[in-house]
Amino acid sequence: MDLAAGVDFGGSSVKVGLVDRRGGIHARETIEIDPRASFEGILEPVVHGLRRLAAGIEKDSSLRTVGIGTPGFTDTVTGVLVGGCENIPRLRGNSIQGFLADALGVPGFADNDATVAAAGELLFGAGRKYRNFLLITLGTGIGGGFVLDGRVFRGARGFAAEIGHLCVDPNGVWCNCGSRGCLEQYASGPAMVRLYTEKAKKRGAELPGRALTPKDIVDRAGAGDPLARDTIEEAGRFLGQAFGTILNLLNLEACIVGGGISQAGDIVIEPIRRHLADHCWPLIASGVQVVTAELLNDAGILGAAAQAFERLER
Amino acid sequence: MDLAAGVDFGGSSVKVGLVDRRGGIHARETIEIDPRASFEGILEPVVHGLRRLAAGIEKDSSLRTVGIGTPGFTDTVTGVLVGGCENIPRLRGNSIQGFLADALGVPGFADNDATVAAAGELLFGAGRKYRNFLLITLGTGIGGGFVLDGRVFRGARGFAAEIGHLCVDPNGVWCNCGSRGCLEQYASGPAMVRLYTEKAKKRGAELPGRALTPKDIVDRAGAGDPLARDTIEEAGRFLGQAFGTILNLLNLEACIVGGGISQAGDIVIEPIRRHLADHCWPLIASGVQVVTAELLNDAGILGAAAQAFERLER
Repeated sequence: MDLAAGVDFGGSSVKVGLVDRRGGIHARETIEIDPRASFEGILEPVVHGLRRLAAGIEKDSSLRTVGIGTPGFTDTVTGVLVGGCENIPRLRGNSIQGFLADALGVPGFADNDATVAAAGELLFGAGRKYRNFLLITLGTGIGGGFVLDGRVFRGARGFAAEIGHLCVDPNGVWCNCGSRGCLEQYASGPAMVRLYTEKAKKRGAELPGRALTPKDIVDRAGAGDPLARDTIEEAGRFLGQAFGTILNLLNLEACIVGGGISQAGDIVIEPIRRHLADHCWPLIASGVQVVTAELLNDAGILGAAAQAFERLER
Repeated sequence: MDLAAGVDFGGSSVKVGLVDRRGGIHARETIEIDPRASFEGILEPVVHGLRRLAAGIEKDSSLRTVGIGTPGFTDTVTGVLVGGCENIPRLRGNSIQGFLADALGVPGFADNDATVAAAGELLFGAGRKYRNFLLITLGTGIGGGFVLDGRVFRGARGFAAEIGHLCVDPNGVWCNCGSRGCLEQYASGPAMVRLYTEKAKKRGAELPGRALTPKDIVDRAGAGDPLARDTIEEAGRFLGQAFGTILNLLNLEACIVGGGISQAGDIVIEPIRRHLADHCWPLIASGVQVVTAELLNDAGILGAAAQAFERLER
């Protein structure tokens, strides 16, 4: 059986797995990395992990290719990570795909993490029902991936779907990208924590002794805390505005919401559905589905492996 | 030789032509229509015109299909014009494609006019160099058409690329679509006339005795009129903002500017180029081309015919 290694980069750990063409995961591992190490220093433990998995492959199977989901901007033409990726800056200017492919002796293909997740959902998850959708990942940042006419869409060099930096308020909060009013400043995990904290201070509400997390806000909203509900409503309004704009441009069938925060389900999804219609032609909004992602933690491994298989066949 | 009829609907006239697979136009005619007539009343003269052209076809050639570019929203799944099209409301709820196909006894395919023009530029015009571009038509309204990964992109039901109603100022001018701050309110022909007139009145500048046209403004800008230059600069700023947003989302290679106003060339194009970079990641903006359309009045006929040929081959 042909297997692909799927590699999903996070800020402090990397998930790797061996995947078959049908999306079956045969072995998996999570590898800690040191984001401050050199490029080679970051990738060596990943190579060791992949070799450990490969050593366990049964005799009638073989590792054919390696697919990688990366943070930041990976140029899908050259394979080089050319920008973004503030948390692991030493990945910049280098080809993760080249390094892993050389180390394993198989071809490789790297793509941006949210696009990889969209590929995973298209083949094995919530995207199977749709030919045109946006996957958005809500976490520390906001990422996006498009499937258009049934195929993953990357744009000219793989930089499409930078949803986190869509402007939702031209006079809004400054973003670390240098622009202002970016969606990420209103609907990412840290943004929700900031919004909630501001509201709580203003109204003299109680805050926990430790640092607040997005999960706290979702949990509090579930328990009926009005400040938490307001925070999620506000984030949902901006997400609805962003989705509405994108729907008008691309006449999509669905928005699939993934990333840690999406696991809260309807508490997060329902406000997005509601606000969408304010920013979108009724003709286009009618019938659009807003749903949660299905693959959660496996989307990256599965999508990266599937895209690598697809490249192999070209 | 196989021929397709290409039909390009305007507000008060319809351009028709017989086109071969290589984009050669063998015969053409412009047909006046009465926008207030019944659906059949509008289309009968078009059918007569097409029959006249078909009667002149040489013996070794034959009419195989009819392609149509329509105003408003044509559902490309059903062929029915389902919305928009305020200038010829009786087209709504009807299938132009069905009517013309029946009358001519060949298959038909209708699509939105700017998407049809994008198809024309892709095959025979300024789009031949690119795999990913937006065509924008600047005229009485603002229309758009996408080519993504080398193919015309329509979205789920053919409604993609409604660029004219992209919000460029959430607190801006109300639009007849019911939203506010739509691009069409800042960069269409009528918007430029409105902006110029406001400026002229404010500064006591001379206005012509007749109604001002967008061409007047472009001509005056060419002759050095500072109010006309300011007007085009302002429209260019909003067009740059819209393009920048779309580039960030789709990582396109080019924006092709068509429609009557685009014929002014660099006077209109240069401000768009300049403002683009303020709204777009440098990585994505670098290398993006903003160019004028090449086919001008023929884009609709050529694109409609080419899309009809393409459908025939499926």
